[in-house]
Amino acid sequence: MAGYPPLVKRLIKELGRFPGIGEKTATRLATFILRAPPDEARMLAESIMEVKEKIRFCPVCFNLTERELCEICADPSRDGETICVVEEPDSLIAIEESGSFRGTYHVLHGALSPLDGIGPERLRLQELLDRIGRNQVRELIVATNPNVQGEATALLITKLVKEKDIKVTRIALGIPFGGDLKYTDRRTLAKSMEFRRGMKDS
Amino acid sequence: MAGYPPLVKRLIKELGRFPGIGEKTATRLATFILRAPPDEARMLAESIMEVKEKIRFCPVCFNLTERELCEICADPSRDGETICVVEEPDSLIAIEESGSFRGTYHVLHGALSPLDGIGPERLRLQELLDRIGRNQVRELIVATNPNVQGEATALLITKLVKEKDIKVTRIALGIPFGGDLKYTDRRTLAKSMEFRRGMKDS
Repeated sequence: MAGYPPLVKRLIKELGRFPGIGEKTATRLATFILRAPPDEARMLAESIMEVKEKIRFCPVCFNLTERELCEICADPSRDGETICVVEEPDSLIAIEESGSFRGTYHVLHGALSPLDGIGPERLRLQELLDRIGRNQVRELIVATNPNVQGEATALLITKLVKEKDIKVTRIALGIPFGGDLKYTDRRTLAKSMEFRRGMKDS
Repeated sequence: MAGYPPLVKRLIKELGRFPGIGEKTATRLATFILRAPPDEARMLAESIMEVKEKIRFCPVCFNLTERELCEICADPSRDGETICVVEEPDSLIAIEESGSFRGTYHVLHGALSPLDGIGPERLRLQELLDRIGRNQVRELIVATNPNVQGEATALLITKLVKEKDIKVTRIALGIPFGGDLKYTDRRTLAKSMEFRRGMKDS
């Protein structure tokens, strides 16, 4: 990026902060901004500022929202007695897009990761326990990711709510729909065997 | 991106305008902005606005600059009698980084591309001719890209300055330094043979 005017260099540096964006791509994005109509660039800059100013966390479930309550918590048709616990808003959106869930959510904003210094106090766990204490909750579906951090988080949640009278379930591990056994890794296949169900279930 | 608050959706849409950035990547970038410290996001937004407000074209060579004249045109040690004609500022920067040129530049801001509706009037050609008329120019090095558009542009420039008393040269085509003949495409290899030089030249 040597040779560009300082302001362009600064923009390349700022764009290079994005994860997965190296200097080459940042330069390409900056070039695009340089050529874009001023209105489009202004809209992008405004959009960044507006998101930072107006997007907040829903005080109930910690989903992203620009209103008081998030869309899901504000919807009286959703089942408040079933709470699906996820790590991040992206997981919530993936589940919503599957159309398979009509309950409510709780976003932890992370998963346990002692090596990265992320302990239980960094997750929205106390808020989850408070919520369970405050409302009638029948089932907690733990939908953290199926990796070391997500599993550890799932175990911790199970331990924390053991005394309470609620069912705690974990989303199933298995072969992806449309998948092929010969391309499935051994651990997934083992889980898929372990979690097998009687044919009458389906 | 269904499920995100409207402001976040708008940001994803704005980021998705970048070339080569699909909805998935745009969502990842938006998530990063959501999580970034407000100061960092503000700096990015400001940087975008500042670039659009303050970066202009050098009135002599049409390079990008934030001052009256660009760094190169303002530098009295550069050889104004040799002008290297490039398509875009990126080409100029690539040549500068090679450290192989001490003359001045002329940025066309494009190449002839009749299919895309880019005719001679869309390029900074008249400005190049005016500049040649105004100043003493000895050599024009045409460094447009070695593809159909760049070659057509190079031919047009040669035609336009035919009457004037200047040498017009074209950058050499050949095998890249460190390249391997067996991985070189046929056209490059053919050009490399055509442009061969006596060993004493080097």
